[in-house]
Formats: sequence, structure tokens, C-alpha cells
Amino acid sequence: MMDRRKPGGSRASTLRREPDNIQIMSGVFEEKTTGTPIMIWIENKDADSTSYEKYKDIFRPGHGDITYHAKYEIRDWRGGGRASARETSARVAAGAVAKEILRRENIDIIAYTIELGGIKANTIDLKHVFKNNYGCPDKNAVIEIEKRVEDIKKKGDSLGGIVEILVTGVPAGLGEPVFDKLDADIAKAIMSIGAVKGVEIGTGFKSSTMLGSENNDSITPDGFASNNSGGILAGISNGDDIRIRVAVKPIPSIVIEQDTIDKDKIPQKISIKGRHDISALPRINVVCESMAAIVIADHLLRQKAVIL
Amino acid sequence: MMDRRKPGGSRASTLRREPDNIQIMSGVFEEKTTGTPIMIWIENKDADSTSYEKYKDIFRPGHGDITYHAKYEIRDWRGGGRASARETSARVAAGAVAKEILRRENIDIIAYTIELGGIKANTIDLKHVFKNNYGCPDKNAVIEIEKRVEDIKKKGDSLGGIVEILVTGVPAGLGEPVFDKLDADIAKAIMSIGAVKGVEIGTGFKSSTMLGSENNDSITPDGFASNNSGGILAGISNGDDIRIRVAVKPIPSIVIEQDTIDKDKIPQKISIKGRHDISALPRINVVCESMAAIVIADHLLRQKAVIL
Amino acid sequence: MMDRRKPGGSRASTLRREPDNIQIMSGVFEEKTTGTPIMIWIENKDADSTSYEKYKDIFRPGHGDITYHAKYEIRDWRGGGRASARETSARVAAGAVAKEILRRENIDIIAYTIELGGIKANTIDLKHVFKNNYGCPDKNAVIEIEKRVEDIKKKGDSLGGIVEILVTGVPAGLGEPVFDKLDADIAKAIMSIGAVKGVEIGTGFKSSTMLGSENNDSITPDGFASNNSGGILAGISNGDDIRIRVAVKPIPSIVIEQDTIDKDKIPQKISIKGRHDISALPRINVVCESMAAIVIADHLLRQKAVIL
Amino acid sequence: MMDRRKPGGSRASTLRREPDNIQIMSGVFEEKTTGTPIMIWIENKDADSTSYEKYKDIFRPGHGDITYHAKYEIRDWRGGGRASARETSARVAAGAVAKEILRRENIDIIAYTIELGGIKANTIDLKHVFKNNYGCPDKNAVIEIEKRVEDIKKKGDSLGGIVEILVTGVPAGLGEPVFDKLDADIAKAIMSIGAVKGVEIGTGFKSSTMLGSENNDSITPDGFASNNSGGILAGISNGDDIRIRVAVKPIPSIVIEQDTIDKDKIPQKISIKGRHDISALPRINVVCESMAAIVIADHLLRQKAVIL
Repeated sequence: MMDRRKPGGSRASTLRREPDNIQIMSGVFEEKTTGTPIMIWIENKDADSTSYEKYKDIFRPGHGDITYHAKYEIRDWRGGGRASARETSARVAAGAVAKEILRRENIDIIAYTIELGGIKANTIDLKHVFKNNYGCPDKNAVIEIEKRVEDIKKKGDSLGGIVEILVTGVPAGLGEPVFDKLDADIAKAIMSIGAVKGVEIGTGFKSSTMLGSENNDSITPDGFASNNSGGILAGISNGDDIRIRVAVKPIPSIVIEQDTIDKDKIPQKISIKGRHDISALPRINVVCESMAAIVIADHLLRQKAVIL
Repeated sequence: MMDRRKPGGSRASTLRREPDNIQIMSGVFEEKTTGTPIMIWIENKDADSTSYEKYKDIFRPGHGDITYHAKYEIRDWRGGGRASARETSARVAAGAVAKEILRRENIDIIAYTIELGGIKANTIDLKHVFKNNYGCPDKNAVIEIEKRVEDIKKKGDSLGGIVEILVTGVPAGLGEPVFDKLDADIAKAIMSIGAVKGVEIGTGFKSSTMLGSENNDSITPDGFASNNSGGILAGISNGDDIRIRVAVKPIPSIVIEQDTIDKDKIPQKISIKGRHDISALPRINVVCESMAAIVIADHLLRQKAVIL
Repeated sequence: MMDRRKPGGSRASTLRREPDNIQIMSGVFEEKTTGTPIMIWIENKDADSTSYEKYKDIFRPGHGDITYHAKYEIRDWRGGGRASARETSARVAAGAVAKEILRRENIDIIAYTIELGGIKANTIDLKHVFKNNYGCPDKNAVIEIEKRVEDIKKKGDSLGGIVEILVTGVPAGLGEPVFDKLDADIAKAIMSIGAVKGVEIGTGFKSSTMLGSENNDSITPDGFASNNSGGILAGISNGDDIRIRVAVKPIPSIVIEQDTIDKDKIPQKISIKGRHDISALPRINVVCESMAAIVIADHLLRQKAVIL
Repeated sequence: MMDRRKPGGSRASTLRREPDNIQIMSGVFEEKTTGTPIMIWIENKDADSTSYEKYKDIFRPGHGDITYHAKYEIRDWRGGGRASARETSARVAAGAVAKEILRRENIDIIAYTIELGGIKANTIDLKHVFKNNYGCPDKNAVIEIEKRVEDIKKKGDSLGGIVEILVTGVPAGLGEPVFDKLDADIAKAIMSIGAVKGVEIGTGFKSSTMLGSENNDSITPDGFASNNSGGILAGISNGDDIRIRVAVKPIPSIVIEQDTIDKDKIPQKISIKGRHDISALPRINVVCESMAAIVIADHLLRQKAVIL
């Protein structure tokens, strides 16, 4: 289930192996869940702390090094900690369970790259998503993305992009009206993924420039005439597709030399070499998908808790 | 404290009076808080259910009418319910308490209009924010916004916009590293406000098109050389200003006739007249400010819970 | 619904009137709940702060005066605060809603006095519970209780007692296995009622002196042969009656003079006259019943949240 | 740290070895906690599922077999699950961390046997607690307990008892006034331990037979003249020792033959042989101590979350 987060053929991602050997430690018996918490153990057989040793007293720009230091006054610099992208493997594992719950209610969820390094997918053809190395639904865009990644890699720099999450089959009625609105919970879940700097639903930021007459979705006996709302109205699902877009910043670890300081506030130059991706996409896509799945599965279960 | 949410001189907002008479029912004794919950009672003396009566069996496009109906199979159509903008008065009241907590730690927070109806504030001069009817920090933009609002009002349509929230004086170290990241909690709190369709931190969506070398904030002995992160790194405040932008959709209640259906799925035409704002800004600004203040005050208190 | 908590004919309780005028402020529309929170407003028309004025700088033994002072360094001495028995009216109001949920699943709940001032009910005949002033299911015990109360009243002292809560019709399967065990949640809910000093389930403290062969409930095709478990095994309801007993301390407000101190730690004598009950039973009985009902309704709803 | 829960010399407990090899998997770096969750891994090297195989389709009286079956319709019968006493090892591990937090604030906590098999400790001399096999503070009682255990063991039966938890050095002011009262949270935490059927604070059930004038603790300039409250007044610690008593039922696994049914509701006889303790005390004592420590540490941290 975790193939998509794992690095692989994409030139935007590294060749570090991290074979995600999964062990289910509890909660499953004779091929069935027992109702107890499912503990999934994912050991990193390919961890290599030595490569982090040279940064142990220095704050990498764009990383949590300096904020962890400020918060805890102690920092485990060995890599793989809670600010590591590796932390997301747990989210994907939990998401796999959530997606199985959703599947039983015929809810499907998929995340894909709609922009990478400024190059946009102009068409959304879902059958292409898993046929290229960038999780992109536009095969023409993939060619340009490939070039862009290659170029930036040579320059020792990195790229960001935009992930879109599409959820189909969600029944109307999920979400709590005030603080636990469905979109509010989705926003929290997605924004809690490292590297995410923005979340929007439906027309999102674009809606701020639209007229009410353009942005409102007319209602017909057969459903909504458009889906500018992104499937959520007043915090509650309206039965239409839920559409979420996620802004992902460029990978902060770059070869290009940057200015920073060390723990003693002495200025330092830093150039980060090693096994770093050029872009968090497409590996982050399945993480976004997983977090959305967890939130929707949770609201689905809440909505079942009814006495008639 | 609630003057800003209350309607007033702005042509974008209505003249309905709703005198927000506030009564503190508990939690304050001899001018001091007692540690008990503070109950604030805001009675709407100007409520008028009759104007909603004609929509009681019809779903207003862009509103929660249809999703509440789907969720609960019963809908209190009399206005002022949980999907009403009036619900935000409670958020502003709680925000006033949160802001008092922040003030004691020298944390300031202000929200202002950086875009309305597609017209952007090109300069941010905070001293202008409360000198115009749109909460806008650019006095030249105000002139154009005024015209735009006037024009759209005549057409019976409505506008959206973008609110920016600026928080200064936040100490480094607030936020929990994984799910309760400071930006994740802010995203949820802001997205839980009706009409909000997007939230971004720092460079936000723009960061997705930037290079790592452009977006990373270099670190100097005197602090960060730039603030693309928006004051939060790896979910934890970095001591810099926190900068949040909020996408607000156009007001869904418009005079222009729209297609919809009624409870029996019969197609209907609807034109919504009455006391509706043209834009949720600037009245929503203080709501955004309040929700951010509540989240930051909460994380500030969490960070104090330490045994040394 | 609140008749039972209200004072009345019992000589153990006072004649203060506190007409519990109930106003439902939200959540109900056209005689039905709407899914929104139900706010119930119970105004105390008979509040009289002046009688508390003489205790404003002195700590009444057995009350929370000294602990509130220690915690908050400010104390609202006017009566009716969070440490007041009046706080329980909200619990009873919420319990009424919970009991309506339970009723729809044929779950019944009743609380009664099984001991007051050391006098035990020797028989449990539920039809007597509401036929006497002490909520006692043993009519012979009532006669002795009456005498005991009369005697203690003259002496200016007060009494405690034991409440039993009986819940019938609970389906097997409610409760979460580890921390949120059904009995754990019940224990918390009941212990959170002022004046409660102990909670036990089934044979409770007596089980500590029994043999395994005595205390285990044998299982037959028709159910359990006995109910020493009190209807809960390993934190999960077993389908049998849930039986809870609650230890209630004597009312701390007594006319008999006691030693105490004031805010400046100066020794003082205190004799508390006025409208105080001799015993928290039977008025506390419905509070116990309500808290148990809330917990069970909550677990019932959790158990409904299932995808098959 | 876990020596006390581990089985050992006591004749009431078995000789199964379960060497509790503890591995700290996260949260500690260079001998210090890092602020991240501390994951402690306790592998059971001595697990033996085969001994449970004969009970896989039969419900052991007094155990959760039948309630788990009712709740989940699937049951992992291999032992060591969530209804196993082994589950408490995690509580003890977490309690060790909590006790370290308390120690820094000079709060001490100890649990000991005050009754086992009906034999009461008549004196509380804490220096004896760890000098005998029953965690009992009365050396004379130990002699009788030893005989009682020996006798019951021969008969193939089991015993219950009462644990007392004593917490000294708790500052006044911990606990939240309404639902999260300190005693309410303690009651939940303790009742969530398997085999516990009752919890009382201070005079507890005995208070129900006392007069107000007897049970109230007079207040003097030097503190309370007595400690009937058990250190908690109105849900908030009063600075005195916190005293909790815990009713523990007899071990349900007994050699004596019992009536039960299997999954198909066919009557069966069951005699449980193997590595079962005669009494949950003294091994449960440190579990009680740990749960109380966790609650108090949590309330201590809450109370630190203050802006002055």
C-alpha cells in the first residue's frame, strides 16, 4: 500500500531505499481487525545518521531545526525525527485503513500533481496519474516537468508544487456545523503535513475574485449545476465531489550555499548534499490523500452514531 | 470590543442594527476573572424571522440550507442559526478574551483587507486600516474598492476578497510538532469560519512556484533575513511575524435571480432581497483575527505547562 | 423533569423555593431537536447572596472555599457558583435529554436511597421509591430515616448516605476496552458530583472479601446466574443490569460550631445557619441518575458508529 | 522500575517469568527527554498462547471473553490482549515517567495492601511495605495473609483485597471545578484498571454514616485538624495528603470448576489451571500508584499553564 510514498523512478525523488517493511503488531487476528488499535511497525532499515552529524549544531534554513531548538532546548539531530518526511509513513499506513473504510461506502479518493515547479497540468485525465513519475494527470505537462526537474537538479536547487485531492462518492451530510466543519478538519489535517503552506477547497483563493452569481452553484433536481463549492457547503458535505488543493513549498534542503547560524549564533555557510528530493511531489501526494481519507472516515463514523 | 464585526458605515455591509448588547453572565467578579468559564450573552434585539419565511422550503444556492437538510432532515429556517454570520459574534467575544491574554505577553494581532472584489492593496500601511470603511491598509485601493462595491450593489451581485492576519511578538516555540502544528490549528480555526474557502501561511500558494533558494529564509545572528515562512517552521513559531491569508468567497445571498430547487426537488427561481452585505469583508476581518488569537493564546498556555 | 432535584416535602431538604423555570434557548424547533446544541436556561429567581456575605472572608469546613482560594486567589463568595449544589441542575437537564435517548432503546435508569444516616434499606421495592420523601425503596426504613433526620436536625448536624443507581435494558457491548471502560467513565461522571466520596460497581468493595468462586457470575444459556459484576465485565456491558453505588458525605454546612480560619489565617468559629439540607439525599439521587444516563447514552452512540 | 508489577516471591502471584525487557524507542536522546512522545517497548518473551487454546470457544466467568465477543463478534483468545493484566505494564511504564515529574515537585506516591482476603492491615507502617511479599504495611497482618493465601491456593480458589494509595506533597489547587475534578479523574483512571470494582477518597463509603460534625475537617492556621476529605475538597487538592482506596475483586481464573457456556451457547464446565495468581494484589498495587501518578502529573502541568 505504501509504494507511492516510497521513493523510486521519479527524478524528483532520491534513490535512497528505505525498504518500508511493514509489521502489523496488534489489532488483526485471523485476517480480520479485532476492534483493538492496529499498531503498524515500519522500521527504517536504511537509516544513516552519520550524514546528519555535520548539521548537528547548525540550523538548516527552511527546516524545523531552529524552532525545535527554541521549543525544547534539545534537538535530536540524527534525522528521521518528527520533522522528517519519514514521519509521513505513519500517516500513509493509517490512511490505508481509512481508505478501506471509505471503499466499503463506495467513496474513492485520489491525489495528483496539478502543478510542479510552476508547470501546470492543463488537463485532468486520471488514468495518466500512475503512468508517469510525477503523479500528474496531464501527459504533456509531464514532459515539461521532467525538463524542469532535470534543470533545477543540476543547479542544486529545489521545487514546490500543488497537489489536488479528489474525493468522489461522499454522501451529503458529513461534517459538524461550527468548529468541526468538514473543511476545517480537512484543512487542519492537510496543513499538519510538513512542507504544506496552503489549503483551499473548491474555487478556493480564486473565489475571492469571483462574483456571487459566478461562484454560487445553481441547484437542479439532478444535483448542482457546477461544483465551485468543492463539495462542502457551510462545513457539511453536499454530495458532490470534494476537491481540495494543497500548496507545497520547495524542498528546503538544497546544494546551493545558504547563510545560516549555529547554536552559538555564529554565522555559517551551508550546502546540503546527499539524498534529498528535488520536490516533495509526487511522494507527498499519497500523504495528502491519506490525511483527507482519515478525516472523511472519521466524519463518516460520527454520522453513523445516530439513534432513530 | 465588537464594533468591528458590527455593521456600519461600509457600503459593503448592511444597515441592519443588531445592537450587540453584551452581558457577562459568569466568570467575572469584582472586575476580575475568577477562573470559571466566562459566559457572554449577546441577544439579537433586531432579529426578524419573517424575512426568512419565504425561503423556508427552498434551498438558497451557496448556503448551508441544502446540507443541513441532508444532515438533519429538519432545518430551522428562521435565520441566525449556526450557519449564520451572526454565529461569529461568539467567536469575536471569545477572541476579545484571547487578545487580552496575548496583550499581556506583548503579542499583537490585526486583520485587514488585502483584496476585495479583485482590487488589491498594493501597500500595507497599518495606520490606514481603521480609517476607512473596508479595513484596508492602502488608501488608494479603498477608492477603487468603493467604486467596485457601488457598481456590484447596483447589479444585485456580491463580492469576495482576501483577509490578511498579522501577528507580531509571538515567541519562538509555540505549536506541537505533528498533528497540532501551530499552522494546522490556525488553518482549522480559520477554515471553520463560514465563507472561508482557503488559508495560506507565509508565501503560501506562491511558494509552490518558488525555488528552494528563493523561498528559504536565511538565518542571521539578528534573526531571519526574510519571512517567507510566515513565522512558522515545521509547525512551530520561529519568533518572526505570523502572516496568514484567508480567501473569502462572495456573499451567496444575491438579488440576481438564481436556479434552485425546493424540498420536493421542484425547480424554483430565487432572488434574495433584504439586508445582505455585498461582501463579507470587512466584517469578517475581526472574526479571522479572533480565531487566530484564540489558537495562539491556547498554544501559549500549553507552552507554559512545563516542569523544570 | 426536574421535580426530583427541587426541594420539597422531605424534611432532609430545605424549603427554599428556587423555582426552576426552564427556558430552551436553542436546538429545538417545531417540537423537535434540530441537531444543534440544546441550550437550557435555568434562572434562579430565589437567589439570595446576602446570606453568604458573612462567610466571604472565612473558609467553611468541608466546602471548596479554601481550595478555590488556593487555586484562583479570588473567590466569588455569593453562592450558586460551581461548587454549589445548584450546579447540578444543569446535569439534571442534560440527563433528561440523555434519558430520552436511552428510552428509545428501552433502557431504563433509576436512582434511590439505600442508606441514609446509617439506616439501610433492607428491601428494594422500586414502586416505593417515589412514594416517600427520601427516595427510598424500603417503606420500613423510611420511618426510621425520618426519625433520624428529625433528631439530627435538632442537633444542628447533618447526615450522609448511599445512593444506588440501577440501569436495565443496556445491551451487551458498550464501553471501550482500555481507558474509556464503561465503569471508568461512570466512575468519573459520578465522582464529579459534589459530595460524592466513593463509587462502586456490582459487589464493589464487598468483592474484595469474596472468593473467586463466590464472586464470579456463572454463565448459562439464559444469561448470568448472578450479577456480582454489576453488569460490566472488563469495562464492557454484559447485557445484565448495571448496578452502581455512590457514597455521599454528610452536608458540610452545619449549625454546630466549628473551628476554621479566615483569609488572613486568623482562627475563627463558624456556625452555618440558613437554608441548608440535612442530607444531600434524596435530592442528589436524580443527579447520580442523570450522570449515569449521560455516560451510557454517549457509549450507546459510540457503539452505533460502525461501518459493516 | 517495573520490579513491583513483575511476579516474584509472593505466593499470591505466579512464577511465570515474563522478563520485562524494556526498550525506549523514541523520545530520549543523550540521556534526556526531547519533548517527543516516549515510546517504550516491552516485549513478552515468555508468552505462551497454547495454554489459552482450550478456552478459545468458551467464555471464562468473570473475564471479558463474553463481552468482547458481544462487542466485536471476534475475539483474539491468545492471551495478553487488552483485557489481560499484562496490559497494565504500559500503565506502569507511563507511571514511571509521571512519578519522575512529581518527584521534581517533591510529590511522593505509594500504594500498599490494606486488606487481602478479608485480612486487614491494622497499622500503616510504610517502612514495612517493601519488606514482605504482599506490599503490606502491617507485618502482623502479613503472617495471616500468608496463611490465607496458602489455604485458598490449595482449594483452587482466589482472593481479592483493598489497595490504598497515599500521595504526599501535592500542592493545594490541582483539579478543575466541574467535570474534571481531581477526584473524578482519579476515579476514572483507577476504575479503568482491570479487576477494580470500587474507588473511594478519604473516608469514602464510611463518610456516608458519619455526621457532618464528625466528617468535616476543622481548619487551623497550621492546616487541617484531620484528613477525612482525603486531600480533595470540591474537586481541588487542599494541600493535605491524598488518600485513595481501591476495591479489587478476586482473580476470576480459578481451578474450582465453574458453569459457563461456549460460543454456541452450549453449557460447559470449566476449571482454569495454569499460571494464575491467587490475588491481583500486590502486583496491582504499582498499577494503581501509576494511574494516580499520571492523573496528578497531568493536573500539575495544567495548573502551570498560567499567564500572570
